[in-house]
Amino acid sequence: MLRIPYDELQSALVRACEHLGLRGERARLCARLVAETTRDGVYTHGLNRFPRFAVTVANGCTSVTALPTVLGGGAGTSNSPAIERWNGNLGVGNLNAYAAMERAIELARGFGLGAVAVANTNHWMRGGSYGWQAAEAGCFAMCWTNTLANLPPWGASTPALGNNPLVIAAPRSNGAHVVLDMAMSQFSYGTLTSYARRGAQLPVPGGFDQAGELTRDPAAIEASKRALPVGYWKGSGLSMLLDLFAAMLSGGRAVNEIPADSLRESGLSQFFLAINPADLAARADMERIADGAIAAVRDAAPIVPGQPARYPGERTLYLREENLRLGVPVDPDVWQGLMALRFEKWT
Amino acid sequence: MLRIPYDELQSALVRACEHLGLRGERARLCARLVAETTRDGVYTHGLNRFPRFAVTVANGCTSVTALPTVLGGGAGTSNSPAIERWNGNLGVGNLNAYAAMERAIELARGFGLGAVAVANTNHWMRGGSYGWQAAEAGCFAMCWTNTLANLPPWGASTPALGNNPLVIAAPRSNGAHVVLDMAMSQFSYGTLTSYARRGAQLPVPGGFDQAGELTRDPAAIEASKRALPVGYWKGSGLSMLLDLFAAMLSGGRAVNEIPADSLRESGLSQFFLAINPADLAARADMERIADGAIAAVRDAAPIVPGQPARYPGERTLYLREENLRLGVPVDPDVWQGLMALRFEKWT
Repeated sequence: MLRIPYDELQSALVRACEHLGLRGERARLCARLVAETTRDGVYTHGLNRFPRFAVTVANGCTSVTALPTVLGGGAGTSNSPAIERWNGNLGVGNLNAYAAMERAIELARGFGLGAVAVANTNHWMRGGSYGWQAAEAGCFAMCWTNTLANLPPWGASTPALGNNPLVIAAPRSNGAHVVLDMAMSQFSYGTLTSYARRGAQLPVPGGFDQAGELTRDPAAIEASKRALPVGYWKGSGLSMLLDLFAAMLSGGRAVNEIPADSLRESGLSQFFLAINPADLAARADMERIADGAIAAVRDAAPIVPGQPARYPGERTLYLREENLRLGVPVDPDVWQGLMALRFEKWT
Repeated sequence: MLRIPYDELQSALVRACEHLGLRGERARLCARLVAETTRDGVYTHGLNRFPRFAVTVANGCTSVTALPTVLGGGAGTSNSPAIERWNGNLGVGNLNAYAAMERAIELARGFGLGAVAVANTNHWMRGGSYGWQAAEAGCFAMCWTNTLANLPPWGASTPALGNNPLVIAAPRSNGAHVVLDMAMSQFSYGTLTSYARRGAQLPVPGGFDQAGELTRDPAAIEASKRALPVGYWKGSGLSMLLDLFAAMLSGGRAVNEIPADSLRESGLSQFFLAINPADLAARADMERIADGAIAAVRDAAPIVPGQPARYPGERTLYLREENLRLGVPVDPDVWQGLMALRFEKWT
């Protein structure tokens, strides 16, 4: 593993984005979102996912020049000024998502809360980015995306649900925001592969084997394609509601209409909500409440002595600081590919 | 088991609410929400939970006369007209929740979306009631409540999180709304007790035994008090974010501040969001999208032949129809207690 200075990583990504046809501020923002993801320790969804983005540009699923357009709601409407419906026009997923959250924040500054439902967009890379974005702006936020069908509904053995990542963020005035970023599958297929390669068992059951028994064996789940929704029937239901909410409100595609090929996964539906608490509660009260809730979790008796339970996002600031100080860890092959602007072989 | 005509159940509950000090329309609405819950087949949270409500009135945790008051946001504010912060004033939980969702719907009719964050309220009985309420009004909705600490965070062995039920609703024009109502624990303690009494194992792991091993043995989990969050670390994080969102935005209590005694659980924080899609997307498009998503889930290969996967809420209309036709099933002892207006011994 190499460690690359953050600025160098970001500059290399800007160059790569420009190579793919992005220009100016758009190339810089797309690159920054990818670089920040790796800097924050979410290695699967940053630099390591960039080649898949490049492939969707090459195969026409992603348009680097398309900008989102407003289809309904928002300014000028008498009954829906605080929510907008967008067509993502198959543009760059992380740029569309960032723009949608920016607009939701802007609406929240005027109305207390605001939302954007986006149809016809692309993979947003790391969902947590948009939670941090809102929290840095002092807002609470929720957002989620649908995906291709990769999860069997509870009671069935073939995929019909997406793992539909859900992000929820609560802002802290000290910058240590609480940000949850969770997919609806207990483990991603990437994680299953990683365990299988090491010959390791999963820490908890992650799916069914081909005989229909719950198993911790990652290879058995890769073979059956029967990954488990979080909480069994509960995550199955939650995944479905997130899909309906995003697709119905945006007028876009539900999971069943999204191409079931990970390199052609396109035309996603997403939902972004921001809440500006400035005029609601006193900031000091909010900080006291959050401090108490976080302390109670930390003070619960730890299973491993000296390792208290953590809040979502707690490790992010630690990894961010370490990676800014020591350099951001990158796979040498992936880094060479980025320097050479060769993306095909990584995917 | 007795079956009681729905109207008779509701009348008996109105009389019981009046006995507890509720008057007029408030007694009728409180009774209706409880009766509808049992009618819809959610037996644990309707009539069978009424005695616990009666006890909280008797012990002073619930005030039958208190009405919620607006503390911030809403009409007259320049920057937060679409969201309000309420003090529930320790009033009746289901009446406060119903009023909050009504207000969120009203705000959504003016702004496209609207929200109410409620501090200092009480147990809302069945959360799904407020999802159905919004869906009947043609709105999408999300709402959740915090609870007393009844769930260890991931990595700890003592409770510091609530099971914080989350409700998400998507309206259908045919009335077959899709409504999810899920707590953050894999099984409630009530369910564990029910399995233990029958000497049955849980269908999936539901917690840890006292040796710290995952188990399907309900008695072992009752002994350890280590119930499992849905999705292990994921539900642990989701529970915490729901708590922070509701408590920080309402300025109310987080889980750690709620009395850890189920008969004195009081001063809860809740959040209600409604979205009125009328001006966003064409209703016909929304129906087509939902039909497709539901059909895809139903068409996934069932594990038990002839038993397709269901969508959240699908069974509700079936049970509602059956219970209206045959009478609502009630426990004879509970029914006798209701007729005699004696609640103490049920709890």
